[in-house]
Amino acid sequence: MTRIDSTPLSSTPRARLGRYPDRARVDRSDLHAVLDAGIVCHLGVVVDGAPLVLPTGYGRIGDVLYLHGSSAATSLRAADAEPVCVTVTLVDGIVYARSVFSHSVNYRCAVVHGRARRVDDDTEKLAGLRALAEHMAPGSWDHAREPTRRELAATLLLAVDTTEASVKVRTGPPGDEDDDIAGATCWAGVLPVTTAWGEPQPCPQLAAGVQVPGYVADRP
Amino acid sequence: MTRIDSTPLSSTPRARLGRYPDRARVDRSDLHAVLDAGIVCHLGVVVDGAPLVLPTGYGRIGDVLYLHGSSAATSLRAADAEPVCVTVTLVDGIVYARSVFSHSVNYRCAVVHGRARRVDDDTEKLAGLRALAEHMAPGSWDHAREPTRRELAATLLLAVDTTEASVKVRTGPPGDEDDDIAGATCWAGVLPVTTAWGEPQPCPQLAAGVQVPGYVADRP
Repeated sequence: MTRIDSTPLSSTPRARLGRYPDRARVDRSDLHAVLDAGIVCHLGVVVDGAPLVLPTGYGRIGDVLYLHGSSAATSLRAADAEPVCVTVTLVDGIVYARSVFSHSVNYRCAVVHGRARRVDDDTEKLAGLRALAEHMAPGSWDHAREPTRRELAATLLLAVDTTEASVKVRTGPPGDEDDDIAGATCWAGVLPVTTAWGEPQPCPQLAAGVQVPGYVADRP
Repeated sequence: MTRIDSTPLSSTPRARLGRYPDRARVDRSDLHAVLDAGIVCHLGVVVDGAPLVLPTGYGRIGDVLYLHGSSAATSLRAADAEPVCVTVTLVDGIVYARSVFSHSVNYRCAVVHGRARRVDDDTEKLAGLRALAEHMAPGSWDHAREPTRRELAATLLLAVDTTEASVKVRTGPPGDEDDDIAGATCWAGVLPVTTAWGEPQPCPQLAAGVQVPGYVADRP
Protein backbone atom coordinates (compact mmCIF):
# COMPACT_ATOMS: atom_id res chain seq x y z
CA MET A 1 0.00 0.00 0.00
CA THR A 2 3.03 2.31 0.15
CA ARG A 3 3.57 2.28 -3.61
CA ILE A 4 3.46 5.86 -4.91
CA ASP A 5 0.71 6.39 -7.45
CA SER A 6 0.89 9.79 -9.07
CA THR A 7 -2.16 9.31 -11.29
CA PRO A 8 -4.12 12.56 -10.91
CA LEU A 9 -7.51 12.34 -9.22
CA SER A 10 -10.57 12.78 -11.40
CA SER A 11 -11.88 16.28 -11.81
CA THR A 12 -15.65 15.90 -12.07
CA PRO A 13 -17.65 18.93 -10.89
CA ARG A 14 -18.58 17.35 -7.57
CA ALA A 15 -15.00 16.21 -6.90
CA ARG A 16 -13.67 19.71 -7.55
CA LEU A 17 -13.26 21.92 -4.50
CA GLY A 18 -15.40 25.03 -4.49
CA ARG A 19 -13.96 26.48 -1.30
CA TYR A 20 -10.22 26.95 -0.66
CA PRO A 21 -9.09 25.19 -3.85
CA ASP A 22 -5.49 25.76 -2.68
CA ARG A 23 -6.13 23.10 -0.06
CA ALA A 24 -6.77 20.45 -2.71
CA ARG A 25 -4.41 17.52 -3.21
CA VAL A 26 -4.68 16.05 -6.64
CA ASP A 27 -2.45 12.96 -6.63
CA ARG A 28 -3.94 9.54 -6.11
CA SER A 29 -1.13 8.86 -3.61
CA ASP A 30 -2.50 11.70 -1.46
CA LEU A 31 -5.91 10.03 -1.49
CA HIS A 32 -4.37 6.70 -0.52
CA ALA A 33 -2.36 8.32 2.28
CA VAL A 34 -5.50 9.79 3.89
CA LEU A 35 -7.51 6.59 3.44
CA ASP A 36 -4.71 4.48 4.91
CA ALA A 37 -4.25 6.80 7.90
CA GLY A 38 -7.93 6.83 8.91
CA ILE A 39 -9.57 4.32 11.23
CA VAL A 40 -13.26 4.55 10.36
CA CYS A 41 -15.02 6.27 7.49
CA HIS A 42 -18.42 7.96 7.38
CA LEU A 43 -20.67 6.34 4.80
CA GLY A 44 -23.43 8.51 3.37
CA VAL A 45 -26.45 6.99 1.65
CA VAL A 46 -29.87 8.32 0.69
CA VAL A 47 -32.80 6.60 2.42
CA ASP A 48 -36.33 7.75 1.50
CA GLY A 49 -34.91 10.97 0.07
CA ALA A 50 -33.01 11.89 3.25
CA PRO A 51 -29.29 11.51 3.92
CA LEU A 52 -28.07 8.90 6.41
CA VAL A 53 -24.46 9.11 7.64
CA LEU A 54 -22.99 6.25 9.65
CA PRO A 55 -19.45 5.42 10.76
CA THR A 56 -18.05 2.12 9.57
CA GLY A 57 -14.78 0.26 9.18
CA TYR A 58 -13.15 -0.07 5.79
CA GLY A 59 -10.17 -1.48 3.96
CA ARG A 60 -8.52 -0.70 0.64
CA ILE A 61 -7.17 -2.81 -2.19
CA GLY A 62 -5.67 -0.56 -4.85
CA ASP A 63 -8.38 1.77 -6.06
CA VAL A 64 -11.25 -0.03 -4.33
CA LEU A 65 -12.60 0.59 -0.84
CA TYR A 66 -14.35 -2.24 0.97
CA LEU A 67 -16.98 -1.58 3.64
CA HIS A 68 -18.91 -4.21 5.50
CA GLY A 69 -21.67 -4.77 7.97
CA SER A 70 -24.55 -7.06 8.71
CA SER A 71 -26.56 -8.34 5.76
CA ALA A 72 -29.55 -6.95 7.65
CA ALA A 73 -28.17 -3.41 8.13
CA THR A 74 -30.50 -0.78 6.67
CA SER A 75 -27.71 1.58 5.64
CA LEU A 76 -25.68 -1.03 3.76
CA ARG A 77 -28.72 -2.50 2.06
CA ALA A 78 -29.77 1.01 1.04
CA ALA A 79 -26.29 1.56 -0.40
CA ASP A 80 -26.24 -1.51 -2.67
CA ALA A 81 -26.07 -0.35 -6.31
CA GLU A 82 -26.85 3.22 -5.24
CA PRO A 83 -24.74 6.40 -5.11
CA VAL A 84 -22.75 6.67 -1.90
CA CYS A 85 -20.28 9.10 -0.40
CA VAL A 86 -17.44 7.78 1.74
CA THR A 87 -15.58 10.37 3.79
CA VAL A 88 -12.45 9.88 5.90
CA THR A 89 -11.36 12.78 8.11
CA LEU A 90 -8.32 13.19 10.32
CA VAL A 91 -8.29 16.19 12.64
CA ASP A 92 -4.71 17.38 13.19
CA GLY A 93 -5.12 20.59 15.14
CA ILE A 94 -7.28 23.48 16.28
CA VAL A 95 -6.24 26.78 14.73
CA TYR A 96 -6.63 29.71 17.15
CA ALA A 97 -6.63 32.97 15.21
CA ARG A 98 -6.65 36.63 16.20
CA SER A 99 -10.13 37.03 14.74
CA VAL A 100 -13.00 34.62 15.29
CA PHE A 101 -13.61 34.58 11.54
CA SER A 102 -10.11 33.18 10.87
CA HIS A 103 -10.39 30.34 13.39
CA SER A 104 -9.92 27.04 11.62
CA VAL A 105 -8.99 23.38 11.90
CA ASN A 106 -5.97 21.59 10.51
CA TYR A 107 -7.17 18.38 8.93
CA ARG A 108 -6.84 15.83 6.16
CA CYS A 109 -10.04 14.76 4.44
CA ALA A 110 -10.80 12.36 1.59
CA VAL A 111 -14.24 12.31 -0.03
CA VAL A 112 -15.08 9.45 -2.39
CA HIS A 113 -18.12 9.61 -4.65
CA GLY A 114 -19.22 6.32 -6.12
CA ARG A 115 -21.85 3.71 -6.58
CA ALA A 116 -21.64 0.87 -4.09
CA ARG A 117 -21.31 -2.63 -5.54
CA ARG A 118 -22.36 -5.59 -3.44
CA VAL A 119 -19.65 -8.25 -3.48
CA ASP A 120 -21.01 -11.78 -3.87
CA ASP A 121 -18.01 -13.54 -5.37
CA ASP A 122 -16.44 -15.65 -2.60
CA THR A 123 -12.84 -14.95 -3.58
CA GLU A 124 -13.29 -11.17 -3.75
CA LYS A 125 -15.40 -11.21 -0.59
CA LEU A 126 -12.71 -12.97 1.42
CA ALA A 127 -10.01 -10.68 -0.01
CA GLY A 128 -12.10 -7.60 0.79
CA LEU A 129 -12.81 -8.75 4.34
CA ARG A 130 -9.13 -9.50 4.82
CA ALA A 131 -8.18 -6.00 3.63
CA LEU A 132 -10.77 -4.60 6.02
CA ALA A 133 -9.52 -6.65 8.98
CA GLU A 134 -5.92 -5.74 8.16
CA HIS A 135 -6.83 -2.04 8.03
CA MET A 136 -8.73 -2.10 11.32
CA ALA A 137 -6.59 -4.63 13.18
CA PRO A 138 -3.34 -5.29 11.28
CA GLY A 139 -1.87 -8.74 11.90
CA SER A 140 -5.07 -10.21 13.25
CA TRP A 141 -6.26 -12.08 10.15
CA ASP A 142 -3.41 -14.59 10.37
CA HIS A 143 -4.14 -15.35 14.04
CA ALA A 144 -7.91 -15.16 14.42
CA ARG A 145 -10.34 -17.79 13.14
CA GLU A 146 -11.44 -17.09 9.56
CA PRO A 147 -15.13 -16.55 8.78
CA THR A 148 -17.34 -19.61 8.35
CA ARG A 149 -19.69 -19.94 5.39
CA ARG A 150 -22.59 -18.92 7.66
CA GLU A 151 -20.71 -15.87 8.92
CA LEU A 152 -19.82 -14.88 5.35
CA ALA A 153 -23.49 -15.07 4.39
CA ALA A 154 -24.39 -12.86 7.36
CA THR A 155 -21.88 -10.25 6.20
CA LEU A 156 -22.66 -7.72 3.51
CA LEU A 157 -19.53 -6.46 1.75
CA LEU A 158 -19.69 -3.37 -0.41
CA ALA A 159 -17.03 -2.25 -2.88
CA VAL A 160 -16.69 1.44 -3.77
CA ASP A 161 -14.41 2.54 -6.59
CA THR A 162 -12.25 5.51 -5.55
CA THR A 163 -11.82 6.95 -9.04
CA GLU A 164 -14.02 9.98 -8.32
CA ALA A 165 -12.61 11.55 -5.19
CA SER A 166 -11.26 14.73 -3.68
CA VAL A 167 -8.67 15.32 -1.00
CA LYS A 168 -8.47 18.49 1.07
CA VAL A 169 -5.71 19.27 3.54
CA ARG A 170 -5.15 22.27 5.80
CA THR A 171 -1.85 22.69 7.61
CA GLY A 172 0.02 25.52 9.24
CA PRO A 173 -0.67 28.61 11.36
CA PRO A 174 -3.75 30.85 11.32
CA GLY A 175 -4.37 32.96 8.24
CA ASP A 176 -5.29 36.21 9.92
CA GLU A 177 -5.56 39.40 7.90
CA ASP A 178 -2.58 41.78 8.20
CA ASP A 179 -4.79 44.32 9.99
CA ASP A 180 -5.56 41.76 12.68
CA ILE A 181 -1.95 40.66 13.10
CA ALA A 182 -0.72 44.20 13.67
CA GLY A 183 -1.06 45.03 17.32
CA ALA A 184 -2.92 41.87 18.32
CA THR A 185 -2.48 40.96 21.95
CA CYS A 186 -4.28 37.61 21.94
CA TRP A 187 -2.49 34.31 21.44
CA ALA A 188 -2.60 32.75 17.98
CA GLY A 189 -1.32 29.38 16.88
CA VAL A 190 -2.19 25.72 16.57
CA LEU A 191 -3.16 23.27 19.31
CA PRO A 192 -2.27 19.89 17.80
CA VAL A 193 -4.66 16.96 18.16
CA THR A 194 -2.79 13.70 18.61
CA THR A 195 -4.23 10.22 18.31
CA ALA A 196 -2.33 7.33 19.83
CA TRP A 197 -2.80 3.73 20.91
CA GLY A 198 -3.26 3.14 24.63
CA GLU A 199 -2.18 0.22 26.79
CA PRO A 200 -3.67 -3.04 25.40
CA GLN A 201 -6.49 -4.38 27.63
CA PRO A 202 -6.53 -8.20 27.56
CA CYS A 203 -9.95 -9.88 27.40
CA PRO A 204 -10.98 -11.06 30.90
CA GLN A 205 -11.48 -14.54 29.41
CA LEU A 206 -8.04 -14.64 27.79
CA ALA A 207 -6.35 -18.03 28.10
CA ALA A 208 -3.57 -18.09 30.70
CA GLY A 209 -0.11 -17.32 29.36
CA VAL A 210 -1.16 -15.56 26.15
CA GLN A 211 1.04 -12.47 25.79
CA VAL A 212 0.18 -9.28 23.92
CA PRO A 213 1.55 -9.88 20.41
CA GLY A 214 3.80 -7.42 18.62
CA TYR A 215 1.13 -6.60 16.02
CA VAL A 216 -0.96 -5.15 18.87
CA ALA A 217 1.69 -3.84 21.29
CA ASP A 218 3.81 -2.20 18.58
CA ARG A 219 1.03 -1.13 16.23
CA PRO A 220 2.38 1.88 14.32
CA MET B 1 -23.88 22.11 29.06
CA THR B 2 -23.34 19.76 31.99
CA ARG B 3 -26.96 19.94 33.11
CA ILE B 4 -28.40 16.42 33.13
CA ASP B 5 -31.37 16.08 30.81
CA SER B 6 -33.06 12.74 31.11
CA THR B 7 -35.75 13.42 28.52
CA PRO B 8 -35.83 10.25 26.42
CA LEU B 9 -34.71 10.53 22.81
CA SER B 10 -37.36 10.31 20.12
CA SER B 11 -38.13 6.90 18.75
CA THR B 12 -38.99 7.46 15.11
CA PRO B 13 -38.31 4.47 12.82
CA ARG B 14 -35.12 5.97 11.42
CA ALA B 15 -33.81 6.94 14.87
CA ARG B 16 -34.39 3.41 16.18
CA LEU B 17 -31.40 1.08 15.99
CA GLY B 18 -31.89 -1.93 13.77
CA ARG B 19 -28.58 -3.57 14.62
CA TYR B 20 -27.35 -4.25 18.17
CA PRO B 21 -30.25 -2.42 19.88
CA ASP B 22 -28.51 -3.20 23.21
CA ARG B 23 -25.92 -0.61 22.24
CA ALA B 24 -28.53 2.15 22.15
CA ARG B 25 -28.52 4.98 24.68
CA VAL B 26 -31.88 6.61 25.03
CA ASP B 27 -31.37 9.60 27.33
CA ARG B 28 -30.95 13.06 25.91
CA SER B 29 -28.01 13.53 28.29
CA ASP B 30 -26.23 10.67 26.49
CA LEU B 31 -26.74 12.49 23.19
CA HIS B 32 -25.39 15.72 24.66
CA ALA B 33 -22.37 13.90 26.13
CA VAL B 34 -21.36 12.51 22.72
CA LEU B 35 -22.00 15.81 20.92
CA ASP B 36 -20.01 17.75 23.52
CA ALA B 37 -17.08 15.29 23.40
CA GLY B 38 -16.67 15.37 19.61
CA ILE B 39 -14.53 17.86 17.71
CA VAL B 40 -16.00 17.84 14.20
CA CYS B 41 -19.20 16.30 12.88
CA HIS B 42 -19.94 14.78 9.49
CA LEU B 43 -22.78 16.59 7.75
CA GLY B 44 -24.74 14.60 5.18
CA VAL B 45 -26.84 16.31 2.54
CA VAL B 46 -28.41 15.18 -0.72
CA VAL B 47 -27.10 16.95 -3.83
CA ASP B 48 -28.62 16.01 -7.19
CA GLY B 49 -29.96 12.79 -5.68
CA ALA B 50 -26.56 11.65 -4.36
CA PRO B 51 -25.28 11.87 -0.80
CA LEU B 52 -22.51 14.30 0.10
CA VAL B 53 -20.72 13.89 3.43
CA LEU B 54 -18.36 16.62 4.67
CA PRO B 55 -16.67 17.23 8.01
CA THR B 56 -17.46 20.50 9.70
CA GLY B 57 -17.23 22.22 13.05
CA TYR B 58 -20.29 22.62 15.24
CA GLY B 59 -21.55 23.94 18.52
CA ARG B 60 -24.60 23.26 20.67
CA ILE B 61 -27.08 25.41 22.55
CA GLY B 62 -29.56 23.20 24.36
CA ASP B 63 -31.28 21.02 21.80
CA VAL B 64 -29.97 22.88 18.75
CA LEU B 65 -26.78 22.19 16.82
CA TYR B 66 -25.15 25.03 14.92
CA LEU B 67 -22.97 24.39 11.87
CA HIS B 68 -21.32 27.02 9.76
CA GLY B 69 -19.33 27.62 6.66
CA SER B 70 -18.96 29.99 3.77
CA SER B 71 -22.14 31.47 2.33
CA ALA B 72 -20.82 30.13 -0.99
CA ALA B 73 -20.28 26.52 0.16
CA THR B 74 -22.23 24.05 -1.99
CA SER B 75 -22.89 21.63 0.85
CA LEU B 76 -24.29 24.23 3.24
CA ARG B 77 -26.40 25.89 0.58
CA ALA B 78 -27.73 22.47 -0.41
CA ALA B 79 -28.60 21.80 3.24
CA ASP B 80 -30.68 24.96 3.77
CA ALA B 81 -34.29 23.93 4.49
CA GLU B 82 -33.53 20.36 3.41
CA PRO B 83 -33.21 17.09 5.36
CA VAL B 84 -29.73 16.61 6.78
CA CYS B 85 -27.96 14.02 8.88
CA VAL B 86 -25.33 15.12 11.38
CA THR B 87 -23.12 12.38 12.78
CA VAL B 88 -20.51 12.65 15.53
CA THR B 89 -18.29 9.63 16.14
CA LEU B 90 -15.62 9.00 18.75
CA VAL B 91 -13.47 5.91 18.29
CA ASP B 92 -12.39 4.56 21.68
CA GLY B 93 -10.67 1.28 20.84
CA ILE B 94 -10.03 -1.54 18.41
CA VAL B 95 -11.54 -4.84 19.55
CA TYR B 96 -9.33 -7.81 18.66
CA ALA B 97 -11.39 -11.00 18.85
CA ARG B 98 -10.57 -14.70 18.52
CA SER B 99 -12.60 -14.86 15.32
CA VAL B 100 -12.41 -12.36 12.51
CA PHE B 101 -16.20 -12.15 12.52
CA SER B 102 -16.24 -10.89 16.13
CA HIS B 103 -13.68 -8.14 15.55
CA SER B 104 -15.20 -4.80 16.43
CA VAL B 105 -14.62 -1.22 17.44
CA ASN B 106 -15.44 0.51 20.72
CA TYR B 107 -17.05 3.83 19.93
CA ARG B 108 -19.62 6.45 20.80
CA CYS B 109 -21.78 7.72 17.96
CA ALA B 110 -24.60 10.25 17.78
CA VAL B 111 -26.75 10.52 14.65
CA VAL B 112 -29.09 13.51 14.33
CA HIS B 113 -31.82 13.58 11.68
CA GLY B 114 -33.30 16.95 10.97
CA ARG B 115 -34.06 19.69 8.55
CA ALA B 116 -31.44 22.44 8.45
CA ARG B 117 -32.66 25.96 9.14
CA ARG B 118 -30.63 28.89 7.88
CA VAL B 119 -30.11 31.43 10.66
CA ASP B 120 -30.57 35.02 9.50
CA ASP B 121 -31.47 36.73 12.77
CA ASP B 122 -28.38 38.64 13.92
CA THR B 123 -28.79 37.82 17.61
CA GLU B 124 -29.22 34.08 17.07
CA LYS B 125 -26.44 34.09 14.47
CA LEU B 126 -23.94 35.66 16.85
CA ALA B 127 -25.01 33.30 19.67
CA GLY B 128 -24.71 30.27 17.36
CA LEU B 129 -21.28 31.33 16.12
CA ARG B 130 -20.18 31.89 19.69
CA ALA B 131 -21.35 28.40 20.69
CA LEU B 132 -19.47 27.03 17.70
CA ALA B 133 -16.27 28.91 18.53
CA GLU B 134 -16.52 27.89 22.18
CA HIS B 135 -16.96 24.24 21.16
CA MET B 136 -14.02 24.26 18.75
CA ALA B 137 -11.73 26.61 20.65
CA PRO B 138 -13.05 27.21 24.18
CA GLY B 139 -12.06 30.56 25.66
CA SER B 140 -11.17 32.12 22.33
CA TRP B 141 -14.33 34.18 21.75
CA ASP B 142 -13.53 36.54 24.60
CA HIS B 143 -10.02 37.19 23.31
CA ALA B 144 -10.26 37.15 19.53
CA ARG B 145 -11.80 39.91 17.43
CA GLU B 146 -15.54 39.40 16.90
CA PRO B 147 -16.92 39.06 13.36
CA THR B 148 -17.58 42.22 11.38
CA ARG B 149 -20.86 42.77 9.56
CA ARG B 150 -19.14 41.78 6.29
CA GLU B 151 -17.74 38.59 7.84
CA LEU B 152 -21.15 37.73 9.26
CA ALA B 153 -22.69 38.10 5.82
CA ALA B 154 -20.02 35.82 4.36
CA THR B 155 -20.85 33.16 6.93
CA LEU B 156 -23.75 30.76 6.52
CA LEU B 157 -25.02 29.44 9.84
CA LEU B 158 -27.33 26.44 9.93
CA ALA B 159 -29.37 25.29 12.92
CA VAL B 160 -30.36 21.63 13.27
CA ASP B 161 -32.82 20.54 15.93
CA THR B 162 -31.56 17.44 17.77
CA THR B 163 -35.01 16.12 18.72
CA GLU B 164 -34.78 13.17 16.32
CA ALA B 165 -31.54 11.41 17.13
CA SER B 166 -29.98 8.13 18.10
CA VAL B 167 -26.94 7.31 20.21
CA LYS B 168 -25.00 4.07 19.93
CA VAL B 169 -22.15 3.06 22.20
CA ARG B 170 -19.97 -0.04 22.27
CA THR B 171 -17.68 -0.69 25.21
CA GLY B 172 -15.88 -3.66 26.68
CA PRO B 173 -14.04 -6.78 25.54
CA PRO B 174 -14.66 -8.86 22.40
CA GLY B 175 -17.90 -10.83 22.21
CA ASP B 176 -16.51 -14.11 20.91
CA GLU B 177 -18.69 -17.20 20.85
CA ASP B 178 -18.02 -19.72 23.64
CA ASP B 179 -16.73 -22.22 21.07
CA ASP B 180 -14.09 -19.72 19.98
CA ILE B 181 -13.04 -18.81 23.50
CA ALA B 182 -12.43 -22.42 24.49
CA GLY B 183 -8.93 -23.37 23.51
CA ALA B 184 -8.12 -20.17 21.64
CA THR B 185 -4.42 -19.40 21.51
CA CYS B 186 -4.58 -15.98 19.88
CA TRP B 187 -4.63 -12.74 21.85
CA ALA B 188 -7.98 -11.06 22.37
CA GLY B 189 -8.73 -7.73 23.94
CA VAL B 190 -9.01 -4.03 23.29
CA LEU B 191 -6.36 -1.64 21.99
CA PRO B 192 -7.57 1.77 23.24
CA VAL B 193 -7.47 4.78 20.94
CA THR B 194 -6.58 7.94 22.83
CA THR B 195 -6.95 11.48 21.60
CA ALA B 196 -5.01 14.23 23.32
CA TRP B 197 -3.88 17.80 22.80
CA GLY B 198 -0.26 18.25 21.77
CA GLU B 199 2.16 21.05 22.57
CA PRO B 200 0.72 24.43 21.46
CA GLN B 201 2.51 25.80 18.37
CA PRO B 202 2.62 29.62 18.46
CA CYS B 203 1.98 31.44 15.20
CA PRO B 204 5.32 32.54 13.66
CA GLN B 205 3.91 36.09 13.53
CA LEU B 206 2.88 36.11 17.19
CA ALA B 207 3.63 39.41 18.93
CA ALA B 208 6.64 39.24 21.25
CA GLY B 209 5.85 38.39 24.84
CA VAL B 210 2.42 36.80 24.27
CA GLN B 211 2.29 33.64 26.38
CA VAL B 212 0.17 30.55 25.71
CA PRO B 213 -3.05 31.24 27.65
CA GLY B 214 -4.55 28.75 30.08
CA TYR B 215 -7.59 28.15 27.86
CA VAL B 216 -5.19 26.67 25.27
CA ALA B 217 -2.43 25.17 27.44
CA ASP B 218 -4.83 23.54 29.92
CA ARG B 219 -7.66 22.67 27.53
CA PRO B 220 -9.44 19.67 29.05
